[in-house]
Amino acid sequence: MRIADLRATPVAIGDPPLRASSGLHAPYALRTIVEVETDDGIVGIAETYGGEAARRAFERARPAVIGRDPWQLTRLRVDVEGLDGQPPAEGFAWEMRSLAPAALFGALEVACLDAIGRTVGRPVVDLLGGRVRDPVPFSAYLFFKHGGDDEWGEVMTPQAVVHEARTMCARYGFRSVKLKGGVLEPDREAEAVLLLREAFGPDVPLRIDPNAAWSVATSLRVAAKLDGTLEYLEDPTSGLDAMAEVAAQVNMPLATNMCVTAFEHIAPAVEKRSVAVILSDHHMWGGLRATVELGRLCRTFGLGLSMHSNSHLGISLAAMTHVAAAVPELTYACDTHYPWQTDEVITGGKLAIVDGAVAVPAGPGLGVELDRDALARLHEQYRRAGLAARDDAAEMRRIDPSWRRHVGDW
Amino acid sequence: MRIADLRATPVAIGDPPLRASSGLHAPYALRTIVEVETDDGIVGIAETYGGEAARRAFERARPAVIGRDPWQLTRLRVDVEGLDGQPPAEGFAWEMRSLAPAALFGALEVACLDAIGRTVGRPVVDLLGGRVRDPVPFSAYLFFKHGGDDEWGEVMTPQAVVHEARTMCARYGFRSVKLKGGVLEPDREAEAVLLLREAFGPDVPLRIDPNAAWSVATSLRVAAKLDGTLEYLEDPTSGLDAMAEVAAQVNMPLATNMCVTAFEHIAPAVEKRSVAVILSDHHMWGGLRATVELGRLCRTFGLGLSMHSNSHLGISLAAMTHVAAAVPELTYACDTHYPWQTDEVITGGKLAIVDGAVAVPAGPGLGVELDRDALARLHEQYRRAGLAARDDAAEMRRIDPSWRRHVGDW
Repeated sequence: MRIADLRATPVAIGDPPLRASSGLHAPYALRTIVEVETDDGIVGIAETYGGEAARRAFERARPAVIGRDPWQLTRLRVDVEGLDGQPPAEGFAWEMRSLAPAALFGALEVACLDAIGRTVGRPVVDLLGGRVRDPVPFSAYLFFKHGGDDEWGEVMTPQAVVHEARTMCARYGFRSVKLKGGVLEPDREAEAVLLLREAFGPDVPLRIDPNAAWSVATSLRVAAKLDGTLEYLEDPTSGLDAMAEVAAQVNMPLATNMCVTAFEHIAPAVEKRSVAVILSDHHMWGGLRATVELGRLCRTFGLGLSMHSNSHLGISLAAMTHVAAAVPELTYACDTHYPWQTDEVITGGKLAIVDGAVAVPAGPGLGVELDRDALARLHEQYRRAGLAARDDAAEMRRIDPSWRRHVGDW
Repeated sequence: MRIADLRATPVAIGDPPLRASSGLHAPYALRTIVEVETDDGIVGIAETYGGEAARRAFERARPAVIGRDPWQLTRLRVDVEGLDGQPPAEGFAWEMRSLAPAALFGALEVACLDAIGRTVGRPVVDLLGGRVRDPVPFSAYLFFKHGGDDEWGEVMTPQAVVHEARTMCARYGFRSVKLKGGVLEPDREAEAVLLLREAFGPDVPLRIDPNAAWSVATSLRVAAKLDGTLEYLEDPTSGLDAMAEVAAQVNMPLATNMCVTAFEHIAPAVEKRSVAVILSDHHMWGGLRATVELGRLCRTFGLGLSMHSNSHLGISLAAMTHVAAAVPELTYACDTHYPWQTDEVITGGKLAIVDGAVAVPAGPGLGVELDRDALARLHEQYRRAGLAARDDAAEMRRIDPSWRRHVGDW
């Protein structure tokens, strides 16, 4: 079995005006739909980061991917990532790489595992060692947001966040709640968390993630207010040292998707004791097997494991669900933006979230099928959207030219 | 696909009178041949530790293994090992476990992966991400030894070690050499290494492994003598602290198969900087996927990875070769006792070592077939040998009642 074709289609998907410390989501989020077709006609699919940078990366990688055996994934990883001081193999070695090597490999790996699963008639989770949980719990991912052309309306107060949470939990049955912070004054965001606690009671784990907007002093002040209320505090401040300073003085685990985003960041984080929970993300960390390996690594060093998300479609959700089903260490409910997206690229419409959890899709491979009409439509939407890359700050400044991002200084 | 039967057959295999700090090898080494048979008639095989303890462990585990889907390996691991403070599942939870849970799981995993590979028509290495090297380099594993009923004769001097090395390298083409020490006076063993360097020149990496027999002072003295001569120094002394003391003062990497033998030993070893190279062993560390994960972990923490061996047959060698072919981090030539064994349990006789390397066996699964006549003969040999467990010290005292083991005090 050889790879006969690699297709990467940029798409734009409708995205509501969500706020974060990075600014404001544009009307479209950008994704890439990847297809690996084998010489016996099997098509494996994946979804990853979008925009022109990703498009170029796949275009350049194409000749170096075609002809490979999709089972030879570690060789592909070595060639893409250029391990052990070796340069990447030809085709992956362009200057100023437009997509992180781990992200490029991760997408290719998911598509190959999907193709392998389809070939052997097994779900992807089984290629990773089988399921230790199914369905997979996800958390309600709350955002402050502007009013817009969506059903959620403006959410810019603690009270509105509680309303948003109630709606989302009623609809999807989520049993844990994460608030994206870094938007309002830190104490107002703490107030939102306390209102959520009041509304949902002590049995619903709560998290807040200000994306490193806060200073150490603010992090400590907010943490004191939320003592006993948070399951974990995600990226209150910026960098391993400031995180370690906070971690040493608070009563709750610190989690991160910012100061530890690759394997090479782990050793210093362990040495400094900066974080207690790492957020995995197979798109960012180099695929599904890398996520399994990250789980073992977290167990070995006494770290917890959770899962990060970006705006995404059903192919990503399927892959996230397969890997989360396989990793024993992933004991926290995973993040997902999925309820915020109305577009879809898989047949049968959006995957169901029931009782706050997603069942591992049935069928071989990822268990989801590409809807080619939807793909064409979302690609056309990409062409018309005229967005080459995500830029939340630019989007925010269109509304408020004086806006600036807080990084460790709020 | 379900597991319909689990068979574990104890065997005894002829073993020459090899010396180590633990004493003297008995005339037979004990192994267990494991067979997992699926309900569609596929038989997957594995080889692991032997003796009565292992036999009992498989016997007790049998009811809890039968009926499982062989793809659901992580669930099996969780059930066998009892992760996260949970007790092991019924069938794996007997008191005073007779075989380490990671060893029990590792053997079951290899047999299941062999069965899976046979089912999908792929070699085991492909189930681990495919090959990054093939053939897999092994090292000449030199031993001091008593004279006996073998072709090697007595090897109890540095000069005799060089002769043994020449014979072994001429026969198998090994390009790296490991000497099992802890037998002669430490300075005599250093002399043996220096003679090996003289005999083989600077391009053949050399290692010595006294199995923690030496004191810190002796380790430092020998290391000074061997400065610039060793690829790594394996377990010169005993325990993470003494190893760290040596590591801080010598000019060569320290390796271990004694103070870090499970994932839970890694974090303290990293903190103390006790070792630079970990010797993997899928029999000990919980299987082939665990070895892949160990590779990622070693890369992440800047540790090297090599491979340990015990006396073993061709099924173990096949499994070692598949996993070593799959793990990019395994850049050292692997240890193997294989040239010391004349018995075999696979069809076609012993696997070939050519130019010091073993090719990944062709064919699905492990690519080796159980020779049932040989299995019956080696099991009969086990019954007659009357050995319930390995006891090198008892074997040694039969010859020299005053012998005692050195642990960190030579």
